[in-house]
Amino acid sequence: MLTVKTSAEATAIIFDTFGKIKMPTEKVDILSSVGRVLSKDIISKENVPDFNRSTVDGYAVLAESTFGCSESIPAILDFKGQVLMGETPTMTVGKGECVYVPTGGELPEGANAMVMIEYAEDYGDGTIGMCKPSAPGQHVAFRGDDVKVGDALLTSGTKLEPRHIGVLAALGVSEVSVFKKPSVAVISTGDELVDVTESPKGAQVRDINSYTISTALMELGCDVKKIGIVVDDLPLLESKIADAVATCDMVIVSGGSSVGVKDATFKVYDKLGEVLFHGIAIKPGKPTILANISGKPCFGLPGHPLAAYYIFHLFVSPLVSSMAGVAAGKVADTRIASLSLSVPCNHGREECIGVKFVEKDDKTVAEPVYAKSGLISNLSESDGFIRIPRDCEGLSQGQEVEVELF
Amino acid sequence: MLTVKTSAEATAIIFDTFGKIKMPTEKVDILSSVGRVLSKDIISKENVPDFNRSTVDGYAVLAESTFGCSESIPAILDFKGQVLMGETPTMTVGKGECVYVPTGGELPEGANAMVMIEYAEDYGDGTIGMCKPSAPGQHVAFRGDDVKVGDALLTSGTKLEPRHIGVLAALGVSEVSVFKKPSVAVISTGDELVDVTESPKGAQVRDINSYTISTALMELGCDVKKIGIVVDDLPLLESKIADAVATCDMVIVSGGSSVGVKDATFKVYDKLGEVLFHGIAIKPGKPTILANISGKPCFGLPGHPLAAYYIFHLFVSPLVSSMAGVAAGKVADTRIASLSLSVPCNHGREECIGVKFVEKDDKTVAEPVYAKSGLISNLSESDGFIRIPRDCEGLSQGQEVEVELF
Repeated sequence: MLTVKTSAEATAIIFDTFGKIKMPTEKVDILSSVGRVLSKDIISKENVPDFNRSTVDGYAVLAESTFGCSESIPAILDFKGQVLMGETPTMTVGKGECVYVPTGGELPEGANAMVMIEYAEDYGDGTIGMCKPSAPGQHVAFRGDDVKVGDALLTSGTKLEPRHIGVLAALGVSEVSVFKKPSVAVISTGDELVDVTESPKGAQVRDINSYTISTALMELGCDVKKIGIVVDDLPLLESKIADAVATCDMVIVSGGSSVGVKDATFKVYDKLGEVLFHGIAIKPGKPTILANISGKPCFGLPGHPLAAYYIFHLFVSPLVSSMAGVAAGKVADTRIASLSLSVPCNHGREECIGVKFVEKDDKTVAEPVYAKSGLISNLSESDGFIRIPRDCEGLSQGQEVEVELF
Repeated sequence: MLTVKTSAEATAIIFDTFGKIKMPTEKVDILSSVGRVLSKDIISKENVPDFNRSTVDGYAVLAESTFGCSESIPAILDFKGQVLMGETPTMTVGKGECVYVPTGGELPEGANAMVMIEYAEDYGDGTIGMCKPSAPGQHVAFRGDDVKVGDALLTSGTKLEPRHIGVLAALGVSEVSVFKKPSVAVISTGDELVDVTESPKGAQVRDINSYTISTALMELGCDVKKIGIVVDDLPLLESKIADAVATCDMVIVSGGSSVGVKDATFKVYDKLGEVLFHGIAIKPGKPTILANISGKPCFGLPGHPLAAYYIFHLFVSPLVSSMAGVAAGKVADTRIASLSLSVPCNHGREECIGVKFVEKDDKTVAEPVYAKSGLISNLSESDGFIRIPRDCEGLSQGQEVEVELF
């Protein structure tokens, strides 16, 4: 008999069993790599900048040529020409000399500082007056100042954002090695379900989970195989799940997980593989199943859309991210906020409560979203949720909580 | 002569001129609508649930049949059969009667409460003993409890997330009306630039902005036309920009915006349309241009990749979101955190400073990312940035700041 697990136990079983699964890797063009996960550290093979670069428009000088100058007593330097953008200068700068260099241009040999154009006056006779002294290194990025050969800039497991793409571009990495997208099959089971394109009759309801779970998986960077509704027919469900296991990296079935009359998901999982747990002591979401079929993680989520969505975020999403190669500790998307209302204690079971962010007295606070049978209204209003431990005696108004964002 | 604007003035000019531009709309399948922006309010045409639904596995009863019962004195009710999932019950429930209904099933007429199966005992003789009284409405979601016909559930301007897709699915909306993606042309100008696929020679540097700006635009949900590098040749730049204006909703040129020797972007924008400002009193990013060419917003960003990235987030991104239909006030992605270090005052100019989130004493704090010529290292390390007003006398360690996330 499988006993109900605490959420910590469930997480431990999930990662003990499947935590080592990692997708194989592939190369992608950096322009289409946002949201993908780096599979190799990025070590610079170059110095950045690769030359001594001016950070201002002005005159490259030997700093000591300007020491002691001022507006009333400018340092008068010989103008030796100008450097164009992208061009390697051919002249040198010695004591008493200067060369015009634009922002981003290369300093001529000999120069070790820049005087901004605002502090220089062109006398028109081949000399320039400097009205402000410049210290050695001022307004100059020396070779390797930003990045040196061998510097580790991005680590394997980083989920790539536009700023990372900039780093890759700067280092000349046009194709990057990333983990392949996990492929996940999504099935909804239940005789009462009809697809969104159909009109429910009698006590039928529309299949919501196929859509929330599939799109949440897409957001996580998965290839989703949305199988849709499978009626509570054991041989049919078994063949659909067996197919899914054979062709995907993970299977998610929602519905059919209650210890009720049919309990179809449990029966099929139990027949095809090993059920690792059946039931998590959490509200909502108790009837949750995890099975290992041919080494692949197969989840059974509650049929109730809100419960399925919570369980997905709490238990499925972390495993998906791990399989996709996201480094541990880089997954959580949470926000600290204070509660706008007190939340009463729960009764011996960990509980998740939806919250929305609202502005109150110029501060963003987290407001619990209650609804008797809060399903759609709750889904549409909640920006995320808070977890209340099972031994908690309630949360007070104004207390800081960690909101897990949807 | 165009004077330098404060950032508030620049934002006002941007929105006064272009704030009314909205993309036309189109219909998309809800499975591919995550990240798209709703162009119509979603008003429910249905009641949810559309029948009186049980929220537990158990027995549908008339609540008063159970009043006063207990474990020692159960209420003994006549069992009238069971309701199957998705089925409209044909029997009724009167006083002294009960019917089995699974979670999500429809209550028979007459029943107004559920008794959980855990509190019922089947005597096997056609009667069931109830050990716990149920109040009217207990464990029942009545017709329309969650959503009533005419309820407004999602409003135009909502950027769709998986939870919203669930709401659409529940209401039978399989295709949804969204704003079209703004198309944006991205150009980098500068004689010193080479593409990421090439090796810089001498004082050349790689084009970073085409990649950061293009991918950031993709993240915002734009169709990006990456034109890439255009050398500082006025007729060439002019023809590229004229083409871009003719075919896109917005043009972004980086580089060529300094009041320097060439100043190519300004010259072309000034020739093709009206330059609305040239220079924002902000660090980094002063040399920023906005022009109106044939009614389309055309930005000139600094060539410096970090400055271009800041300016994009501060001034371009809000306009892109507005054009894409995102409702005002739903754009900012910020996080409050306390500073891990003091930040010295700046000098009369608003300043942006990159910060990264680090864990310190079990709290997430914002740590300023300093680097002398911090370009790539700064980009790779900063999770976002803070804005320091121009009249601020510095920020103290521990002070709470609002971090704008990249």
